[in-house]
Amino acid sequence: MKNFELTREYIDNLKALIQSKDETAIQAIVDDLHPADIAEVYEEMTIDEAKYLYFIMDDDKAADVLTELEEEDRNRFLGHLPSEIIAKRFIDNMDSDDAADILGALDEEIQQEVLSHMDDVSSAGNIADLLSFDEDTAGGLMAKELIKVKENWSIPTCIKSMRRQAADIDEVYYVYVVDTDGILKGTISLKKILLSPSSSIVKDLYNPDIISVKADTKDEEVSNLMDKYDLVAMPVIDQVGRLIGRITIDDVVDVMREEAEKDYQLASGITDDVELNDSLWAHTRARIPWLFIGLLGGIFGSRVVGGFESIIDQHPQLTFFMGLIAAMGGNVGIQSSAIVVQALASQSMGIETTTFKLLKELSISVLNATVLSLLIFAYNYFAGASMALTATVSVAMFSVVVFASLFGTAVPLLMNRLKFDPAVATGPFITTLNDIIGMFIYFSIGSLIFSLLM
Amino acid sequence: MKNFELTREYIDNLKALIQSKDETAIQAIVDDLHPADIAEVYEEMTIDEAKYLYFIMDDDKAADVLTELEEEDRNRFLGHLPSEIIAKRFIDNMDSDDAADILGALDEEIQQEVLSHMDDVSSAGNIADLLSFDEDTAGGLMAKELIKVKENWSIPTCIKSMRRQAADIDEVYYVYVVDTDGILKGTISLKKILLSPSSSIVKDLYNPDIISVKADTKDEEVSNLMDKYDLVAMPVIDQVGRLIGRITIDDVVDVMREEAEKDYQLASGITDDVELNDSLWAHTRARIPWLFIGLLGGIFGSRVVGGFESIIDQHPQLTFFMGLIAAMGGNVGIQSSAIVVQALASQSMGIETTTFKLLKELSISVLNATVLSLLIFAYNYFAGASMALTATVSVAMFSVVVFASLFGTAVPLLMNRLKFDPAVATGPFITTLNDIIGMFIYFSIGSLIFSLLM
Repeated sequence: MKNFELTREYIDNLKALIQSKDETAIQAIVDDLHPADIAEVYEEMTIDEAKYLYFIMDDDKAADVLTELEEEDRNRFLGHLPSEIIAKRFIDNMDSDDAADILGALDEEIQQEVLSHMDDVSSAGNIADLLSFDEDTAGGLMAKELIKVKENWSIPTCIKSMRRQAADIDEVYYVYVVDTDGILKGTISLKKILLSPSSSIVKDLYNPDIISVKADTKDEEVSNLMDKYDLVAMPVIDQVGRLIGRITIDDVVDVMREEAEKDYQLASGITDDVELNDSLWAHTRARIPWLFIGLLGGIFGSRVVGGFESIIDQHPQLTFFMGLIAAMGGNVGIQSSAIVVQALASQSMGIETTTFKLLKELSISVLNATVLSLLIFAYNYFAGASMALTATVSVAMFSVVVFASLFGTAVPLLMNRLKFDPAVATGPFITTLNDIIGMFIYFSIGSLIFSLLM
Repeated sequence: MKNFELTREYIDNLKALIQSKDETAIQAIVDDLHPADIAEVYEEMTIDEAKYLYFIMDDDKAADVLTELEEEDRNRFLGHLPSEIIAKRFIDNMDSDDAADILGALDEEIQQEVLSHMDDVSSAGNIADLLSFDEDTAGGLMAKELIKVKENWSIPTCIKSMRRQAADIDEVYYVYVVDTDGILKGTISLKKILLSPSSSIVKDLYNPDIISVKADTKDEEVSNLMDKYDLVAMPVIDQVGRLIGRITIDDVVDVMREEAEKDYQLASGITDDVELNDSLWAHTRARIPWLFIGLLGGIFGSRVVGGFESIIDQHPQLTFFMGLIAAMGGNVGIQSSAIVVQALASQSMGIETTTFKLLKELSISVLNATVLSLLIFAYNYFAGASMALTATVSVAMFSVVVFASLFGTAVPLLMNRLKFDPAVATGPFITTLNDIIGMFIYFSIGSLIFSLLM
């Protein structure tokens, strides 16, 4: 299998083949592509072209492609299919976690119809179980397919049972060990099963050191645990410790990527998961909310500055440095909030108290503020500005940098304590507030210094 | 094994036990903890306490803990140990990729000493091989430990050979199939080996659809491929296609996390990988460079605004909206650059040309700019501002938003083409440039409109 690169020519060629219904050529192309590549191709196809391609694929591949599609494209495509086809062509051929993800995005009525049309009643039951969990919990991430053995079994019993269980499962990472009540006890590796004499009993071989999560554990917590402990799969247990599913690393990688992208987008003032090739409307919807808040903040800021009209009339040079003071406040605020948000996201907050963190941030900011205000003092001094202006800009720089730094640290900590997403407190939010407060500090200090010195 | 939470009390208690050399109690604590947890505990210990803890652990656990430590802490710790201890106590008990990562961070002289002290000469050779690859390539990520079978082997021969090979390997994800020249042909799952009759030959069973990378493939490319194709391990081949190693998902998760954190930090104006509990000095070093650039930009901006002194003298109300215009330019610029940087990072640039992307961005920005300038027009109109001021702010808003949006899109695209990291073009960089150009646009438009209307 070659590494695949999507090009305009490739798509145009495929569209032409579909147009001329050249089934042999299309079959060859589809056979050669990985489902993830076909999913990329799909995004460039019309509904009719997409249907035609689906008709050519075998059931397993069609199900895999559907799993790989972006949610929006998938729902649009499924909207054109009767629920019986969805059930028998796709859902019947999927792992329970993928099936639940896909059905979870459809209307409840259609979910019921699809489940009722499934050939495999036991997997329909599994999917219905999974649909009852919140999407952003361990229960929402897990699959029901797993291999488990009882602790009192011998190796040949294990192998016999595993062969039966493995028929449904693509990849076996761990074999879980449970007691007769189904309580999770540990894992046993395929390697150990392969290497041990057949007279051994599971109880004497398995590894009892196992990290598991309850079904209601948040997905972020799951991804932090799997990352920290380098796990490729993690068992999920119910309230009494019975094994009810397992989460695999590929699902968690998606969670990690989404979390990182979301934080990045919030820091950049984008509210929605928007991609370069999304529609004009999707882009506007994702960008306008923060711009609107920025506009309101800016209008409010203009009134704050307007309140200082008389000193601006007398000393217009003060306005030359408004941009500098606002920008430094903004930059420092974003830096501070970003560091807190990252620490919260990766749960590396350390063991120090909030007061200690704020005091540390205070020292860092006093250090930075001193350097910056000395530099701007030197610049204005040598550029021949008046002593009042020089002093105002330097003192304001110091105050705004220290304020913005503490503000940028405190706001996400506070939001986190109030159970809001601290990442919202980054980017335009901090900048806008800093702008307003920064201008107030700047002109207040200016009014004071100019009235003293002139 | 319980989920572990590090607290001040826990650390203080452990330090007291070490102080009183209560070996039994410490042994019990260490036995109960996962290496990743011990690594967290380590960050709170002095060198002497850390050494004491290492003395209590068995070799395997000590090696695992060392792997989990942050690079800085690890190097500091290793700096206190003779190279013979490093070799026999740690490196001899590690997977080749972890060993190469750890040695790669030490001086070349010490690397040589450690390798010469290793008991296992063949793994010393493996590590030396790995050290020759760049850290940020597939070769730098891969491990030499893998299980391979020849395509002409029967199932019993496979199992015999695998038992020998597996002794060195913690977890087996895939069994690789090679021909007699060592050329990678495909994979065969443990499941298939388990389920097939013993008379079968590998050639008839293995799966030839395999995605591999060359040793010099960039780590970002590796992580994108493993994410896209949901792989838990990926084989690495040399220039002629021979299997030389494999990369596992846990290493790639680290790459992904680092990439995401780096981009986030760049967007937030932080240059170094800095964490909340790092030293004051590390924080200052990470934050001051962008603040310094912001300072220079701000000083330059003050000169640009200063160039418009005469119009500011006549119409000081113009300065009330400087903050608004600068903020909107900054916000829009960051949004646009963030979307491009994310698309570049996830290689989801789509198949459209650069011109098409810029034209699309132009449409989005014209749409946003129209909405925003109408809103600010309405505000100023109803707030009773002069027509000249109202017109200036609205026209400038429109121009700055459109400019910032195109600028924010074009700069990262250009940087990427010139082989710089496009993420550098986000955050303070875009904001600072936008500030200066925005002020120039604002006051130029103001000068023109006021001279026409008044």
